[in-house]
Amino acid sequence: MTRVRVNLFVSLDGFTSATDNSPDNPMGEDWGRLAAGHIATRTFRERVFGDTSGAGTTGVDDRYTAAFFEGVGAEIMGAGMFGLHAFPGDPEWKGWWGDRPPFGTPVYVLTNTLRRQDWSKPAPPGGYPYRVVPRPSIPMEGGTTFHFRSGAIEDVLAEAADAAGGLDVRVGGGVGTARAFLRAGLVDDLHLMVAPIVLGRGTGLWDDLGGLDLTHKVTSEVGESGTIHVTFTR
Amino acid sequence: MTRVRVNLFVSLDGFTSATDNSPDNPMGEDWGRLAAGHIATRTFRERVFGDTSGAGTTGVDDRYTAAFFEGVGAEIMGAGMFGLHAFPGDPEWKGWWGDRPPFGTPVYVLTNTLRRQDWSKPAPPGGYPYRVVPRPSIPMEGGTTFHFRSGAIEDVLAEAADAAGGLDVRVGGGVGTARAFLRAGLVDDLHLMVAPIVLGRGTGLWDDLGGLDLTHKVTSEVGESGTIHVTFTR
Repeated sequence: MTRVRVNLFVSLDGFTSATDNSPDNPMGEDWGRLAAGHIATRTFRERVFGDTSGAGTTGVDDRYTAAFFEGVGAEIMGAGMFGLHAFPGDPEWKGWWGDRPPFGTPVYVLTNTLRRQDWSKPAPPGGYPYRVVPRPSIPMEGGTTFHFRSGAIEDVLAEAADAAGGLDVRVGGGVGTARAFLRAGLVDDLHLMVAPIVLGRGTGLWDDLGGLDLTHKVTSEVGESGTIHVTFTR
Repeated sequence: MTRVRVNLFVSLDGFTSATDNSPDNPMGEDWGRLAAGHIATRTFRERVFGDTSGAGTTGVDDRYTAAFFEGVGAEIMGAGMFGLHAFPGDPEWKGWWGDRPPFGTPVYVLTNTLRRQDWSKPAPPGGYPYRVVPRPSIPMEGGTTFHFRSGAIEDVLAEAADAAGGLDVRVGGGVGTARAFLRAGLVDDLHLMVAPIVLGRGTGLWDDLGGLDLTHKVTSEVGESGTIHVTFTR
Protein backbone atom coordinates (compact mmCIF):
# COMPACT_ATOMS: atom_id res chain seq x y z
CA MET A 1 0.00 0.00 0.00
CA THR A 2 1.57 3.24 -1.15
CA ARG A 3 1.84 5.88 1.54
CA VAL A 4 2.63 9.55 1.04
CA ARG A 5 5.45 10.85 3.19
CA VAL A 6 7.12 14.14 3.86
CA ASN A 7 10.46 14.65 5.61
CA LEU A 8 11.31 18.19 6.61
CA PHE A 9 14.02 20.00 8.51
CA VAL A 10 12.72 22.69 10.83
CA SER A 11 14.14 24.87 13.57
CA LEU A 12 12.69 25.09 17.08
CA ASP A 13 10.94 28.27 16.03
CA GLY A 14 9.28 26.61 13.05
CA PHE A 15 11.37 27.74 10.11
CA THR A 16 12.16 25.18 7.45
CA SER A 17 15.03 26.98 5.84
CA ALA A 18 16.24 30.48 5.49
CA THR A 19 15.09 32.49 2.54
CA ASP A 20 18.65 33.29 1.56
CA ASN A 21 19.13 30.55 -1.02
CA SER A 22 20.52 31.50 -4.40
CA PRO A 23 21.80 29.75 -7.53
CA ASP A 24 25.27 29.74 -5.98
CA ASN A 25 24.01 28.32 -2.68
CA PRO A 26 20.75 26.58 -3.54
CA MET A 27 20.01 25.30 -0.04
CA GLY A 28 20.72 28.59 1.73
CA GLU A 29 23.38 28.96 4.37
CA ASP A 30 21.21 27.82 7.27
CA TRP A 31 20.30 24.48 5.71
CA GLY A 32 23.51 22.90 6.94
CA ARG A 33 22.68 23.89 10.52
CA LEU A 34 19.13 22.60 10.17
CA ALA A 35 20.24 19.27 8.72
CA ALA A 36 23.44 18.81 10.75
CA GLY A 37 22.17 15.77 12.63
CA HIS A 38 21.07 14.11 9.38
CA ILE A 39 24.28 14.91 7.52
CA ALA A 40 26.39 13.54 10.40
CA THR A 41 24.89 10.05 10.17
CA ARG A 42 26.75 7.11 8.71
CA THR A 43 23.86 6.41 6.33
CA PHE A 44 23.84 9.92 4.91
CA ARG A 45 27.61 9.93 4.46
CA GLU A 46 27.44 6.63 2.63
CA ARG A 47 24.39 7.37 0.49
CA VAL A 48 25.11 10.96 -0.44
CA PHE A 49 28.88 11.38 -0.10
CA GLY A 50 29.77 7.82 -1.10
CA ASP A 51 31.78 7.49 2.11
CA THR A 52 32.07 3.76 2.79
CA SER A 53 34.59 4.15 5.63
CA GLY A 54 31.92 3.60 8.26
CA ALA A 55 32.32 7.09 9.68
CA GLY A 56 29.28 8.89 11.01
CA THR A 57 26.76 8.51 13.82
CA THR A 58 24.90 5.23 14.18
CA GLY A 59 22.21 5.95 16.79
CA VAL A 60 18.72 7.40 16.77
CA ASP A 61 19.48 9.95 14.06
CA ASP A 62 20.91 7.27 11.78
CA ARG A 63 17.85 5.09 12.25
CA TYR A 64 15.63 7.91 10.99
CA THR A 65 18.03 8.71 8.16
CA ALA A 66 18.07 5.06 7.06
CA ALA A 67 14.26 5.08 7.03
CA PHE A 68 14.42 8.32 5.06
CA PHE A 69 16.22 6.56 2.23
CA GLU A 70 14.21 3.33 2.29
CA GLY A 71 11.00 2.40 0.57
CA VAL A 72 10.50 5.41 -1.68
CA GLY A 73 9.32 4.53 -5.19
CA ALA A 74 8.67 8.00 -6.55
CA GLU A 75 9.32 11.58 -5.54
CA ILE A 76 7.42 14.82 -6.03
CA MET A 77 9.08 18.20 -5.68
CA GLY A 78 8.46 21.83 -6.45
CA ALA A 79 10.17 23.60 -9.33
CA GLY A 80 12.36 25.52 -6.87
CA MET A 81 13.74 22.36 -5.34
CA PHE A 82 14.60 21.00 -8.79
CA GLY A 83 16.29 24.30 -9.56
CA LEU A 84 14.07 25.31 -12.45
CA HIS A 85 14.04 28.96 -11.40
CA ALA A 86 17.82 29.22 -11.64
CA PHE A 87 17.93 28.94 -15.42
CA PRO A 88 14.29 28.93 -16.51
CA GLY A 89 15.04 29.60 -20.17
CA ASP A 90 17.81 27.03 -20.64
CA PRO A 91 16.46 23.81 -22.19
CA GLU A 92 19.75 22.06 -21.34
CA TRP A 93 19.48 22.79 -17.60
CA LYS A 94 19.04 19.55 -15.67
CA GLY A 95 18.62 20.98 -12.20
CA TRP A 96 21.19 21.33 -9.46
CA TRP A 97 21.16 17.76 -8.22
CA GLY A 98 24.22 16.78 -10.26
CA ASP A 99 24.65 14.11 -12.93
CA ARG A 100 23.64 11.36 -10.53
CA PRO A 101 20.82 12.70 -8.33
CA PRO A 102 20.31 10.87 -5.02
CA PHE A 103 16.71 9.86 -5.73
CA GLY A 104 17.05 6.81 -7.98
CA THR A 105 13.33 6.95 -8.82
CA PRO A 106 10.97 8.89 -11.04
CA VAL A 107 10.81 12.48 -9.78
CA TYR A 108 7.77 14.58 -10.62
CA VAL A 109 8.60 18.28 -10.71
CA LEU A 110 5.61 20.57 -10.25
CA THR A 111 5.78 23.58 -12.51
CA ASN A 112 3.43 25.81 -14.43
CA THR A 113 6.08 26.95 -16.86
CA LEU A 114 4.80 24.30 -19.25
CA ARG A 115 2.26 26.82 -20.35
CA ARG A 116 3.39 29.42 -22.79
CA GLN A 117 1.61 32.18 -24.60
CA ASP A 118 1.20 31.43 -28.27
CA TRP A 119 2.95 34.47 -29.66
CA SER A 120 2.39 33.27 -33.25
CA LYS A 121 -1.13 34.66 -33.20
CA PRO A 122 -2.42 38.15 -32.52
CA ALA A 123 -4.07 38.62 -29.15
CA PRO A 124 -7.77 37.80 -29.46
CA PRO A 125 -10.44 39.86 -27.66
CA GLY A 126 -10.48 37.47 -24.68
CA GLY A 127 -6.72 37.64 -24.24
CA TYR A 128 -3.91 35.41 -25.42
CA PRO A 129 -4.68 31.75 -25.80
CA TYR A 130 -2.23 29.45 -24.10
CA ARG A 131 -0.94 26.18 -25.31
CA VAL A 132 0.82 23.51 -23.34
CA VAL A 133 4.44 23.06 -24.36
CA PRO A 134 5.52 19.84 -22.71
CA ARG A 135 8.93 20.03 -21.11
CA PRO A 136 10.63 16.76 -22.00
CA SER A 137 11.48 14.31 -19.24
CA ILE A 138 15.18 14.09 -18.31
CA PRO A 139 16.66 10.67 -17.56
CA MET A 140 19.71 10.90 -15.29
CA GLU A 141 22.30 8.44 -14.07
CA GLY A 142 21.41 6.18 -11.17
CA GLY A 143 17.75 5.62 -11.93
CA THR A 144 16.42 9.16 -11.49
CA THR A 145 14.17 10.53 -14.22
CA PHE A 146 12.76 14.02 -13.90
CA HIS A 147 9.23 14.51 -15.22
CA PHE A 148 7.55 17.93 -15.35
CA ARG A 149 3.88 18.25 -14.53
CA SER A 150 1.50 21.18 -14.27
CA GLY A 151 -1.69 19.43 -13.20
CA ALA A 152 -3.49 19.40 -9.89
CA ILE A 153 -1.39 17.96 -7.07
CA GLU A 154 -3.91 15.14 -6.65
CA ASP A 155 -3.41 14.10 -10.29
CA VAL A 156 0.37 14.27 -10.04
CA LEU A 157 0.20 12.24 -6.84
CA ALA A 158 -1.93 9.58 -8.57
CA GLU A 159 0.63 9.30 -11.37
CA ALA A 160 3.51 9.14 -8.89
CA ALA A 161 1.71 6.49 -6.83
CA ASP A 162 1.28 4.36 -9.97
CA ALA A 163 4.97 4.77 -10.76
CA ALA A 164 6.00 3.92 -7.19
CA GLY A 165 4.99 0.30 -7.69
CA GLY A 166 3.71 -0.24 -4.16
CA LEU A 167 6.48 1.73 -2.50
CA ASP A 168 5.94 5.15 -0.93
CA VAL A 169 5.72 8.52 -2.63
CA ARG A 170 7.79 11.21 -1.01
CA VAL A 171 6.88 14.86 -1.33
CA GLY A 172 10.42 16.11 -1.06
CA GLY A 173 9.86 19.85 -0.88
CA GLY A 174 10.36 22.69 -0.89
CA VAL A 175 8.31 23.63 2.07
CA GLY A 176 5.68 25.40 -0.04
CA THR A 177 5.06 22.19 -1.96
CA ALA A 178 5.07 20.09 1.20
CA ARG A 179 2.59 22.44 2.86
CA ALA A 180 0.29 22.27 -0.16
CA PHE A 181 0.11 18.47 0.18
CA LEU A 182 -0.29 18.71 3.96
CA ARG A 183 -3.08 21.28 3.70
CA ALA A 184 -4.86 19.09 1.15
CA GLY A 185 -4.79 16.19 3.59
CA LEU A 186 -2.71 14.03 1.24
CA VAL A 187 0.17 13.17 3.59
CA ASP A 188 0.15 9.94 5.61
CA ASP A 189 3.56 10.26 7.28
CA LEU A 190 5.23 13.52 8.22
CA HIS A 191 8.70 13.32 9.76
CA LEU A 192 10.10 16.53 11.19
CA MET A 193 13.73 16.80 12.10
CA VAL A 194 13.63 19.67 14.58
CA ALA A 195 17.12 21.12 14.93
CA PRO A 196 18.02 22.58 18.35
CA ILE A 197 18.45 26.07 16.92
CA VAL A 198 16.35 29.22 16.83
CA LEU A 199 16.76 30.52 13.29
CA GLY A 200 14.62 33.62 13.61
CA ARG A 201 14.06 33.74 9.84
CA GLY A 202 13.07 31.55 6.96
CA THR A 203 9.94 29.98 5.60
CA GLY A 204 7.42 29.09 8.28
CA LEU A 205 6.28 25.48 8.38
CA TRP A 206 3.30 25.65 10.67
CA ASP A 207 0.93 28.13 9.11
CA ASP A 208 -2.38 26.49 8.29
CA LEU A 209 -1.38 23.17 9.91
CA GLY A 210 -3.34 23.69 13.14
CA GLY A 211 -4.99 20.47 14.31
CA LEU A 212 -2.64 18.09 12.49
CA ASP A 213 -2.29 16.28 15.83
CA LEU A 214 -6.02 15.51 15.69
CA THR A 215 -5.81 13.64 12.37
CA HIS A 216 -2.39 12.04 12.90
CA LYS A 217 -0.69 10.27 15.80
CA VAL A 218 2.32 12.19 17.13
CA THR A 219 5.60 10.72 18.41
CA SER A 220 8.80 12.46 19.51
CA GLU A 221 12.32 11.20 20.07
CA VAL A 222 15.59 13.04 20.64
CA GLY A 223 18.66 11.99 18.68
CA GLU A 224 22.27 12.19 19.79
CA SER A 225 22.74 15.36 17.72
CA GLY A 226 20.01 17.09 19.73
CA THR A 227 17.67 16.80 16.76
CA ILE A 228 14.09 16.16 17.89
CA HIS A 229 12.41 13.67 15.55
CA VAL A 230 8.68 14.37 15.53
CA THR A 231 6.46 12.10 13.46
CA PHE A 232 2.83 12.50 12.46
CA THR A 233 1.29 9.25 11.21
CA ARG A 234 -2.22 8.23 10.19
CA MET B 1 23.75 32.83 43.10
CA THR B 2 20.30 33.92 41.98
CA ARG B 3 19.37 32.82 38.48
CA VAL B 4 16.46 34.05 36.42
CA ARG B 5 14.27 31.32 35.03
CA VAL B 6 11.28 31.06 32.75
CA ASN B 7 9.06 28.00 32.33
CA LEU B 8 6.62 28.09 29.44
CA PHE B 9 4.14 25.79 27.79
CA VAL B 10 4.22 25.88 24.01
CA SER B 11 2.73 23.89 21.16
CA LEU B 12 4.77 22.33 18.36
CA ASP B 13 3.84 25.30 16.20
CA GLY B 14 5.13 27.79 18.75
CA PHE B 15 1.98 29.07 20.43
CA THR B 16 2.07 29.54 24.16
CA SER B 17 -1.63 29.66 24.77
CA ALA B 18 -4.72 30.47 22.87
CA THR B 19 -5.98 34.00 22.95
CA ASP B 20 -9.39 32.86 24.10
CA ASN B 21 -8.93 33.41 27.83
CA SER B 22 -11.59 35.34 29.69
CA PRO B 23 -12.47 36.18 33.31
CA ASP B 24 -14.55 32.99 33.40
CA ASN B 25 -11.74 30.87 31.97
CA PRO B 26 -8.56 32.79 32.76
CA MET B 27 -6.16 30.26 31.24
CA GLY B 28 -8.09 29.78 28.00
CA GLU B 29 -9.45 26.45 26.89
CA ASP B 30 -6.24 25.27 25.22
CA TRP B 31 -4.08 25.68 28.29
CA GLY B 32 -5.13 22.31 29.64
CA ARG B 33 -3.99 20.61 26.44
CA LEU B 34 -0.68 22.51 26.47
CA ALA B 35 0.02 21.65 30.09
CA ALA B 36 -1.45 18.13 30.14
CA GLY B 37 1.90 16.42 30.74
CA HIS B 38 2.69 18.79 33.64
CA ILE B 39 -0.77 18.48 35.22
CA ALA B 40 -0.60 14.67 35.04
CA THR B 41 2.52 14.44 37.21
CA ARG B 42 2.44 13.29 40.81
CA THR B 43 4.25 16.44 41.91
CA PHE B 44 1.73 18.77 40.28
CA ARG B 45 -1.19 16.84 41.72
CA GLU B 46 0.33 17.05 45.16
CA ARG B 47 1.49 20.65 45.04
CA VAL B 48 -1.50 22.22 43.29
CA PHE B 49 -4.43 19.88 43.95
CA GLY B 50 -3.27 18.73 47.39
CA ASP B 51 -3.57 15.13 46.22
CA THR B 52 -1.34 13.10 48.56
CA SER B 53 -2.56 9.71 47.26
CA GLY B 54 0.58 9.24 45.19
CA ALA B 55 -1.37 9.27 41.93
CA GLY B 56 0.23 10.81 38.86
CA THR B 57 3.18 10.15 36.60
CA THR B 58 6.65 9.79 38.12
CA GLY B 59 9.01 9.81 35.15
CA VAL B 60 10.72 12.44 33.05
CA ASP B 61 7.80 14.86 33.17
CA ASP B 62 7.63 14.65 36.96
CA ARG B 63 11.34 15.34 37.27
CA TYR B 64 10.91 18.60 35.36
CA THR B 65 7.77 19.48 37.31
CA ALA B 66 9.57 18.91 40.62
CA ALA B 67 12.38 21.19 39.45
CA PHE B 68 9.72 23.70 38.42
CA PHE B 69 8.55 24.00 42.02
CA GLU B 70 11.98 23.97 43.65
CA GLY B 71 14.38 26.76 44.40
CA VAL B 72 12.24 29.78 43.52
CA GLY B 73 12.55 32.65 45.99
CA ALA B 74 10.54 35.30 44.17
CA GLU B 75 8.23 35.49 41.18
CA ILE B 76 7.56 38.19 38.60
CA MET B 77 4.43 38.21 36.48
CA GLY B 78 2.49 40.48 34.19
CA ALA B 79 -0.73 42.15 35.27
CA GLY B 80 -2.72 39.83 33.02
CA MET B 81 -1.39 36.72 34.74
CA PHE B 82 -2.30 38.16 38.13
CA GLY B 83 -5.75 38.94 36.78
CA LEU B 84 -5.60 42.68 37.20
CA HIS B 85 -7.44 43.30 33.94
CA ALA B 86 -10.46 41.32 35.07
CA PHE B 87 -11.55 43.85 37.69
CA PRO B 88 -9.19 46.81 37.29
CA GLY B 89 -11.30 49.20 39.36
CA ASP B 90 -11.96 46.92 42.32
CA PRO B 91 -9.53 47.63 45.19
CA GLU B 92 -10.66 44.41 46.89
CA TRP B 93 -9.74 42.18 43.93
CA LYS B 94 -6.87 39.88 44.88
CA GLY B 95 -6.32 38.18 41.52
CA TRP B 96 -7.58 34.82 40.37
CA TRP B 97 -5.05 32.62 42.12
CA GLY B 98 -7.36 31.89 45.05
CA ASP B 99 -6.92 32.54 48.76
CA ARG B 100 -3.78 30.42 48.89
CA PRO B 101 -1.81 31.04 45.68
CA PRO B 102 0.68 28.30 44.74
CA PHE B 103 3.73 30.58 44.79
CA GLY B 104 4.60 30.85 48.48
CA THR B 105 7.00 33.71 47.78
CA PRO B 106 6.91 37.44 47.08
CA VAL B 107 5.28 37.96 43.66
CA TYR B 108 6.02 41.16 41.76
CA VAL B 109 3.17 42.10 39.45
CA LEU B 110 4.16 44.41 36.61
CA THR B 111 1.54 47.04 35.94
CA ASN B 112 1.33 50.64 34.87
CA THR B 113 -2.05 51.19 36.45
CA LEU B 114 -0.27 52.63 39.47
CA ARG B 115 -0.31 55.92 37.65
CA ARG B 116 -3.49 57.90 37.83
CA GLN B 117 -4.47 61.29 36.58
CA ASP B 118 -4.79 63.83 39.33
CA TRP B 119 -8.34 64.91 38.66
CA SER B 120 -8.29 67.24 41.67
CA LYS B 121 -6.52 69.90 39.62
CA PRO B 122 -7.52 71.60 36.38
CA ALA B 123 -5.59 70.49 33.33
CA PRO B 124 -2.48 72.63 32.97
CA PRO B 125 -1.19 73.77 29.53
CA GLY B 126 1.13 70.82 29.27
CA GLY B 127 -1.62 68.32 29.98
CA TYR B 128 -2.66 66.54 33.13
CA PRO B 129 0.02 65.84 35.67
CA TYR B 130 0.18 62.29 36.90
CA ARG B 131 0.86 61.11 40.36
CA VAL B 132 1.82 57.64 41.41
CA VAL B 133 -0.85 56.00 43.53
CA PRO B 134 0.83 53.00 45.03
CA ARG B 135 -1.34 49.91 44.88
CA PRO B 136 -0.96 48.31 48.31
CA SER B 137 0.74 44.95 48.55
CA ILE B 138 -1.56 42.01 49.24
CA PRO B 139 -0.40 39.31 51.66
CA MET B 140 -2.08 35.96 50.99
CA GLU B 141 -2.16 32.64 52.78
CA GLY B 142 0.74 30.27 52.25
CA GLY B 143 3.55 32.80 52.03
CA THR B 144 2.57 34.59 48.83
CA THR B 145 2.56 38.40 48.90
CA PHE B 146 1.63 40.30 45.75
CA HIS B 147 3.55 43.53 45.16
CA PHE B 148 2.70 45.88 42.29
CA ARG B 149 5.48 47.61 40.42
CA SER B 150 5.59 49.95 37.44
CA GLY B 151 9.33 50.42 37.04
CA ALA B 152 11.72 49.14 34.39
CA ILE B 153 11.89 45.35 34.29
CA GLU B 154 15.57 45.51 35.27
CA ASP B 155 14.68 47.41 38.44
CA VAL B 156 11.86 45.05 39.33
CA LEU B 157 14.20 42.12 38.73
CA ALA B 158 16.82 43.64 41.03
CA GLU B 159 14.22 44.01 43.79
CA ALA B 160 12.95 40.46 43.25
CA ALA B 161 16.50 39.09 43.27
CA ASP B 162 17.10 40.78 46.64
CA ALA B 163 13.89 39.30 47.98
CA ALA B 164 14.76 35.83 46.66
CA GLY B 165 17.51 35.46 49.25
CA GLY B 166 19.87 33.52 47.00
CA LEU B 167 17.15 31.40 45.41
CA ASP B 168 16.00 31.88 41.83
CA VAL B 169 13.64 34.45 40.41
CA ARG B 170 11.01 33.04 38.12
CA VAL B 171 9.41 35.18 35.45
CA GLY B 172 6.12 33.32 35.48
CA GLY B 173 4.36 34.91 32.54
CA GLY B 174 2.30 35.69 30.65
CA VAL B 175 4.18 35.15 27.49
CA GLY B 176 4.42 38.87 26.74
CA THR B 177 6.20 39.42 30.05
CA ALA B 178 8.42 36.38 29.56
CA ARG B 179 9.37 37.54 26.07
CA ALA B 180 10.24 41.01 27.37
CA PHE B 181 12.74 39.47 29.81
CA LEU B 182 14.07 37.10 27.14
CA ARG B 183 14.53 39.90 24.61
CA ALA B 184 16.35 41.96 27.23
CA GLY B 185 18.81 39.10 27.79
CA LEU B 186 17.81 38.75 31.44
CA VAL B 187 16.92 35.04 31.47
CA ASP B 188 19.50 32.42 32.49
CA ASP B 189 17.31 29.31 32.27
CA LEU B 190 14.41 28.84 29.88
CA HIS B 191 12.46 25.60 30.13
CA LEU B 192 9.95 24.94 27.37
CA MET B 193 7.38 22.20 27.74
CA VAL B 194 6.52 21.56 24.10
CA ALA B 195 3.18 19.76 23.93
CA PRO B 196 2.71 17.33 21.01
CA ILE B 197 -0.14 19.36 19.56
CA VAL B 198 -0.48 21.84 16.72
CA LEU B 199 -2.66 24.60 18.14
CA GLY B 200 -2.81 26.78 15.05
CA ARG B 201 -3.66 29.85 17.14
CA GLY B 202 -2.52 31.72 20.20
CA THR B 203 0.32 33.96 21.21
CA GLY B 204 3.55 33.22 19.38
CA LEU B 205 6.57 32.50 21.54
CA TRP B 206 9.41 32.69 19.08
CA ASP B 207 9.18 36.14 17.52
CA ASP B 208 12.35 38.09 18.21
CA LEU B 209 14.10 35.14 19.88
CA GLY B 210 16.24 34.18 16.87
CA GLY B 211 19.73 33.14 17.92
CA LEU B 212 18.84 32.17 21.50
CA ASP B 213 20.70 28.91 20.81
CA LEU B 214 23.88 30.95 20.29
CA THR B 215 23.80 32.51 23.78
CA HIS B 216 22.38 29.49 25.64
CA LYS B 217 23.10 25.77 25.61
CA VAL B 218 20.15 23.73 24.34
CA THR B 219 19.00 20.33 25.59
CA SER B 220 15.94 18.28 24.65
CA GLU B 221 14.26 15.31 26.29
CA VAL B 222 10.90 13.64 25.64
CA GLY B 223 8.64 12.81 28.56
CA GLU B 224 6.19 9.92 28.83
CA SER B 225 3.32 12.30 28.02
CA GLY B 226 4.95 13.13 24.69
CA THR B 227 5.91 16.54 26.02
CA ILE B 228 9.30 17.63 24.68
CA HIS B 229 11.30 19.38 27.39
CA VAL B 230 13.64 21.89 25.75
CA THR B 231 15.99 23.85 27.99
CA PHE B 232 18.13 26.88 27.21
CA THR B 233 20.80 27.49 29.84
CA ARG B 234 23.67 29.93 30.14
